[in-house]
Amino acid sequence: MAPTTPRLVVPIDLTKKPSEQKVPLHNRWHPDIPSVADVTEGEVFRIEMVDCNGGAVGDNDTAHDLNAANISAVHYLSGPIRVLDKDGMPAKAGDLLAVEICNLGPLPGSEWGYTASLDRDRGGSFLTDHFPCATKAIWYFEGIYAHSPQIPGVRFPGIPHPGLIGTAPSMELLNIWNERERELQEKGHKSMTLSEHLHKRPFAGLPTPDGCLLGKIEEGTPEWEKIAKEGARTIPGRENGGNCDIKNLSTGSKVYLPVFIDGANLSAGDMHFSQGDGEVSFCGAIEMDGFLELKCEIIRGGMREYLTPMGPTPLHVNPIFEIGPVEPRFSEWLVFEGISVDESGKQHYLDASVAFKRAVLNAIDYISKFGYSREQVYLLLSACPCEARIAGIVDCPNACATLAIPTAIFDQDIRPKPGKIPVGARLVRKPDVMKCTYGGNLPITKNPSASV
Amino acid sequence: MAPTTPRLVVPIDLTKKPSEQKVPLHNRWHPDIPSVADVTEGEVFRIEMVDCNGGAVGDNDTAHDLNAANISAVHYLSGPIRVLDKDGMPAKAGDLLAVEICNLGPLPGSEWGYTASLDRDRGGSFLTDHFPCATKAIWYFEGIYAHSPQIPGVRFPGIPHPGLIGTAPSMELLNIWNERERELQEKGHKSMTLSEHLHKRPFAGLPTPDGCLLGKIEEGTPEWEKIAKEGARTIPGRENGGNCDIKNLSTGSKVYLPVFIDGANLSAGDMHFSQGDGEVSFCGAIEMDGFLELKCEIIRGGMREYLTPMGPTPLHVNPIFEIGPVEPRFSEWLVFEGISVDESGKQHYLDASVAFKRAVLNAIDYISKFGYSREQVYLLLSACPCEARIAGIVDCPNACATLAIPTAIFDQDIRPKPGKIPVGARLVRKPDVMKCTYGGNLPITKNPSASV
Amino acid sequence: MAPTTPRLVVPIDLTKKPSEQKVPLHNRWHPDIPSVADVTEGEVFRIEMVDCNGGAVGDNDTAHDLNAANISAVHYLSGPIRVLDKDGMPAKAGDLLAVEICNLGPLPGSEWGYTASLDRDRGGSFLTDHFPCATKAIWYFEGIYAHSPQIPGVRFPGIPHPGLIGTAPSMELLNIWNERERELQEKGHKSMTLSEHLHKRPFAGLPTPDGCLLGKIEEGTPEWEKIAKEGARTIPGRENGGNCDIKNLSTGSKVYLPVFIDGANLSAGDMHFSQGDGEVSFCGAIEMDGFLELKCEIIRGGMREYLTPMGPTPLHVNPIFEIGPVEPRFSEWLVFEGISVDESGKQHYLDASVAFKRAVLNAIDYISKFGYSREQVYLLLSACPCEARIAGIVDCPNACATLAIPTAIFDQDIRPKPGKIPVGARLVRKPDVMKCTYGGNLPITKNPSASV
Amino acid sequence: MAPTTPRLVVPIDLTKKPSEQKVPLHNRWHPDIPSVADVTEGEVFRIEMVDCNGGAVGDNDTAHDLNAANISAVHYLSGPIRVLDKDGMPAKAGDLLAVEICNLGPLPGSEWGYTASLDRDRGGSFLTDHFPCATKAIWYFEGIYAHSPQIPGVRFPGIPHPGLIGTAPSMELLNIWNERERELQEKGHKSMTLSEHLHKRPFAGLPTPDGCLLGKIEEGTPEWEKIAKEGARTIPGRENGGNCDIKNLSTGSKVYLPVFIDGANLSAGDMHFSQGDGEVSFCGAIEMDGFLELKCEIIRGGMREYLTPMGPTPLHVNPIFEIGPVEPRFSEWLVFEGISVDESGKQHYLDASVAFKRAVLNAIDYISKFGYSREQVYLLLSACPCEARIAGIVDCPNACATLAIPTAIFDQDIRPKPGKIPVGARLVRKPDVMKCTYGGNLPITKNPSASV
Repeated sequence: MAPTTPRLVVPIDLTKKPSEQKVPLHNRWHPDIPSVADVTEGEVFRIEMVDCNGGAVGDNDTAHDLNAANISAVHYLSGPIRVLDKDGMPAKAGDLLAVEICNLGPLPGSEWGYTASLDRDRGGSFLTDHFPCATKAIWYFEGIYAHSPQIPGVRFPGIPHPGLIGTAPSMELLNIWNERERELQEKGHKSMTLSEHLHKRPFAGLPTPDGCLLGKIEEGTPEWEKIAKEGARTIPGRENGGNCDIKNLSTGSKVYLPVFIDGANLSAGDMHFSQGDGEVSFCGAIEMDGFLELKCEIIRGGMREYLTPMGPTPLHVNPIFEIGPVEPRFSEWLVFEGISVDESGKQHYLDASVAFKRAVLNAIDYISKFGYSREQVYLLLSACPCEARIAGIVDCPNACATLAIPTAIFDQDIRPKPGKIPVGARLVRKPDVMKCTYGGNLPITKNPSASV
Repeated sequence: MAPTTPRLVVPIDLTKKPSEQKVPLHNRWHPDIPSVADVTEGEVFRIEMVDCNGGAVGDNDTAHDLNAANISAVHYLSGPIRVLDKDGMPAKAGDLLAVEICNLGPLPGSEWGYTASLDRDRGGSFLTDHFPCATKAIWYFEGIYAHSPQIPGVRFPGIPHPGLIGTAPSMELLNIWNERERELQEKGHKSMTLSEHLHKRPFAGLPTPDGCLLGKIEEGTPEWEKIAKEGARTIPGRENGGNCDIKNLSTGSKVYLPVFIDGANLSAGDMHFSQGDGEVSFCGAIEMDGFLELKCEIIRGGMREYLTPMGPTPLHVNPIFEIGPVEPRFSEWLVFEGISVDESGKQHYLDASVAFKRAVLNAIDYISKFGYSREQVYLLLSACPCEARIAGIVDCPNACATLAIPTAIFDQDIRPKPGKIPVGARLVRKPDVMKCTYGGNLPITKNPSASV
Repeated sequence: MAPTTPRLVVPIDLTKKPSEQKVPLHNRWHPDIPSVADVTEGEVFRIEMVDCNGGAVGDNDTAHDLNAANISAVHYLSGPIRVLDKDGMPAKAGDLLAVEICNLGPLPGSEWGYTASLDRDRGGSFLTDHFPCATKAIWYFEGIYAHSPQIPGVRFPGIPHPGLIGTAPSMELLNIWNERERELQEKGHKSMTLSEHLHKRPFAGLPTPDGCLLGKIEEGTPEWEKIAKEGARTIPGRENGGNCDIKNLSTGSKVYLPVFIDGANLSAGDMHFSQGDGEVSFCGAIEMDGFLELKCEIIRGGMREYLTPMGPTPLHVNPIFEIGPVEPRFSEWLVFEGISVDESGKQHYLDASVAFKRAVLNAIDYISKFGYSREQVYLLLSACPCEARIAGIVDCPNACATLAIPTAIFDQDIRPKPGKIPVGARLVRKPDVMKCTYGGNLPITKNPSASV
Repeated sequence: MAPTTPRLVVPIDLTKKPSEQKVPLHNRWHPDIPSVADVTEGEVFRIEMVDCNGGAVGDNDTAHDLNAANISAVHYLSGPIRVLDKDGMPAKAGDLLAVEICNLGPLPGSEWGYTASLDRDRGGSFLTDHFPCATKAIWYFEGIYAHSPQIPGVRFPGIPHPGLIGTAPSMELLNIWNERERELQEKGHKSMTLSEHLHKRPFAGLPTPDGCLLGKIEEGTPEWEKIAKEGARTIPGRENGGNCDIKNLSTGSKVYLPVFIDGANLSAGDMHFSQGDGEVSFCGAIEMDGFLELKCEIIRGGMREYLTPMGPTPLHVNPIFEIGPVEPRFSEWLVFEGISVDESGKQHYLDASVAFKRAVLNAIDYISKFGYSREQVYLLLSACPCEARIAGIVDCPNACATLAIPTAIFDQDIRPKPGKIPVGARLVRKPDVMKCTYGGNLPITKNPSASV
């Protein structure tokens, strides 16, 4: 009858590097990365996680650490966790793993986070052609609220969530990933879709031993070499869940993950204190160290019972989830529209990405009129609980996307009103975000009609 | 001190055709279509509207009327309304027109609507390569609730809204539209983005005198000929608002529309009793006749003060809006994910449209397991208050989109549970939607792994 | 297949008096008042209703009509409606009648309402010892929104609802009512609970032929005389539902009413555009003419199956209901507390009414600091969507009640902030509500410590 | 630039008794109890708290510990905390202390709580005349969710809150409290209001040295003797806030407390994981150990600027508060009504307490039809997030109160439906709550018409 405190299966010591943690971390997807712990269905357990950059980005006054961080090393994941049923039998391929997020938050003693964009030549972001340089803002947490010295005048409750949660792929699925991403990498120019600009970003991050961390597998062993060459990078979300960056996968949510190998091998990482839909600045949530308290249930055969493959193999599935009951309530939203016509005036065809880009650009320029730099708003919209919707996707040739911003996060009324926007000392939002100089030579998109 | 009932400025007589209404309708955007009424800012006025097809699709037992309807004639708009300030001065180009939706609903005596998809060779829809034939479901309204004999077992409160509301373009803006859409039409194959399939849909609907209705301008006059040749079709949303199909532009919302010509010349139509984000089946909201009660405010110079052009000219702007305070509340959602890998297994690059397509396909196949045909679910997701989100748009190469469905609209629990999905008489959802046979010869996309 | 517009079973002609309506109204509860219409379960039907005072209070510039109105004549009810099942069999005593409110609103052409308090000697209100005179404010509707020239600076969406909906009592139940209320009337002083003041209000309104309206029963007949002598007044809510003034019984709600006589004999009236919990000023909602669109279902034997009598007979039951899905959303509330200590400083014992009185008084004095007269706030809190909660009812000797006010209804920020409350022209809220002079000689409670 | 973890100003060691904590606790209100810590406005600090019974009620299989616990010792409070401004000047009498609840929860390692009612002769509860014996249920927490082995079939997210938070009274205010409560104690029978039954409960708990704990003041000293004789018990909420048991004073809320003595001397305790409005079973929230992370702001002179005394002295005020943005969302509620007629059929006059009692009794009997014992439902309604409203308080002679229960907390559909309530093994909710035998001889109220 003793109360059950969640068992800590993956502890994190923030004074140590990701590679030095007692329970080793990993940053690739591969079926052969051994599990680090067993959990039983029904049991509430706790895992702790370092931030996506594993401490390489600090609470300091520069954005240069973004240029120094090894992109090949993100994301550091806690796990894999092997899941057993009450009889001790592991989850099997074809099952569905229901994972309830009972609780989550920052690690005690580390109540802060950051939002950043990368240099264009090192990964960029959604608007990298407009904002080519690395930028950074620090957020401090006061319980449920976050505020940033670099983005004054806003404060909001977070919707904390793991940016990344997923099961291990089978070898067959891993091969599918590597093949399709390699094909894109090689033929990328023909399939790039977002204006002419985004192709300057890497099309895909293919497997590389650089920065590779493989849990219990020791570097230098043949096993390590093999897995490092094959292991999928964690950047994109895929059939196993992974880095989906779904901001509403928060407290009380339940995600149903397909199981591809024995034990399911659940991993998670990339904790976010808050994120806007789209996570537009890329390193764009409020990135933090954190913990998850999870409870698993195995639905035997559930992958086949509930999920329909959407592609050539039975492995082409996606997770589904239920949203939890506690999220911040907002009742007033200012909403920006965008259509699939780009900054050059060119008409695209039902392209939701282009439409959303225009909605974000509209929002940035609008809010910057209230005293902010455009970089401040860019990072803000990446981090605050704004909602990105596909409003219409059928009205040829324009997709219509919207970005809805809760007005209560601002300390001023940002709605349009008759007369001029108020100006003055209060509305000069200083200081600004931290920035690096852009050293590349790719062209920067300028809005031809903007006054600034 | 007498109470003020909204003044009816555009009445509709449902026993008459769109072309026979006392206050004439129009179905093209052009600055020279004369206004049919004046309203003063602060005044609450009422306009009535026919449905998008102007009565050509009926409450009957066939989908063939969809094949017979003239696509070139949608949407029939009520207006243009000229807006004056309290001194009688009209709104001017460069102003912002704040339009509050005080009330709206179906026309008394016409408490029904329909959801449909078109034949693939006549316009198709978002999933036209999967669902090539015309389909239709009828919805009946019981106050705030809708239910359909063709989609049994669901009932939900609507979020009524005008699919289309906008101001008249200036000649300069109209020319921009026509040029960019013509360019797409001509070079379409190179810029098409959504798998290989959507290019079978028309890229854009260019101006055509076919089906043209121009308000007070009489057919046969030289003026009619000129406008008919130039007037933009109403299908896509554009800089003036228009057919944005934003489902949350509902009761109590306020939309801020840019003003391009004297008087603003506000028009609205395409009333929806309900719509899912995306309106995936194209004729896909619950299409109905309806009324709007509106109140306008002119923000002088507000277009320049608040909106930043996002393209080569000062006219490349978009409306913004505030969401109203009364919408159905749902607290439980089942959410489907999709990534930018298509049904053939091909990797696309950060393509939100492809990711959303996969999320919708996942949802359709999932819900169809509960006794529905896939066509029933397709129309349902197009019409019910589901939410389409762009969750992540930066994690190369996968965009992640989600489709969230409120579980309360079903009369059964559709969440995954251990064991098999319940089957039996209760769960065979009969009858089905109405369908036409697909007579074209374009290839149909089959899900290679689906059991059905 | 024709769409079904709700059948109008009780029409109202606003140019005629309550006693002159085509389908006659009634203002007493009695089993022998004949039904005026039959409806079938599943059918959506419409009834129209006059306001609670039947037109005696007008859209004018005086509160004197409140002193002139006949209190004995409220509330004018539309009905009784006899409810049949699909086989034509009427509802029976012991059944449960599920009534869904599919839609409701003001009568077209009558988009206004009023909030008022009565003179203390004519019925008073919750705070009648503080506010002894009749007061009145007029509200105009702009779609879902209400605003009042007499209470400037506030505008809010209504939560429309019937203040009164119920089934006819059986003779046995009617006798129970009359007996217990007569006993209170006679022995009232001993059981009065709310400070020493409220006993100046009538304890109960006993049956009286004065102002009596009995539907199809003609005045002057012996039947009329009998019913008029026995018929219960409609002021209080009782076992049959009746005047419960529950503000959340709004669009989409479903109320389960016990059935006491054959046919159920459903009646409704006292339509409110909006009301605060408690309806503190008595005639205190936004009183209006209106319509209801209802759908009934008969749950056979459901009264016995679901409701447990809570008193000496099987008739001592109460309705239950489900709240509908569309109500205004507010996310920010300012909340006032009250404990069961009265204005004289006297300690009462777990008295939620006294605690609530103190919460309301606290709210009135607080908000009046922002430029309002106390009468303006009193009527506002009676009419706006504020929430009255019993927070704690066990912490002897203090009950704790709260009154929560949505801050978004004000055009200024009413939260406490460092520094003085802003003053100045903008904040003098003129004009004031309409008032009569109090002509009685009962003592008026003054707050001994208030500065004003 | 280092992130600021909240400073722990009152730690709790759960292995020690309340009287042995390193920072001593107190359980009386008195101005002379010395502060145990200083905090500065703007600083986020953390206090930890034992549960209201200080560990005397355990996670075991008996309710007898409720009979053994010393009622005179509740509630153990953490504090007093002296609040200083940024210049080190303490808050002053007449200021307003804005306390933001940044975060709160159970103590790590103590993720459980209990709901109980006391024996009638030892304090009873709201329905003590119906439920005279001590009862108890244990709740275990899984992150945000609570479930109880004794009340199977329900699980819900908590709305954690401090049942008790307040500032120290001045000697003048303390005297007012003691006088008015002594007067009630002495003349109680005349002012008791809740049926004839509640007067069996103690009217008020007057000061007593029994069980007294006074922080830094050592027992046995003359100062201790004096304060113990004068110090107000913590059971009721009062002018200083205190034990208001407001369930929505949760995460992100901000309470504005009047300041009566230098430093404000803030104390808090009685943490609840969840509570229903009313806390009807008395020890009726989910009582737990817990922590608060708070941030204070001093509004100089704010008590006089914002609060209006509501009684004979300037001290007769009440706190106000703002509700935070993160609470569980529920959209479906089943609502029970009650009117001010008691179980004997007697009519009371506008008595919200009696009306609420009937609403609770209605809810208990209704829900118990779904397989529960009435004691199970009683404790459940005391602990789960149900809402108690005063719907109407003006319709003489009946007040109408409602109790709204979120249906999503049950694993079965509890709404009324045609046909019989489903029965069978699944619906026998075993085991039951723990109970003591009632050893007193006060009469027990039986519902004369209940079948059980």
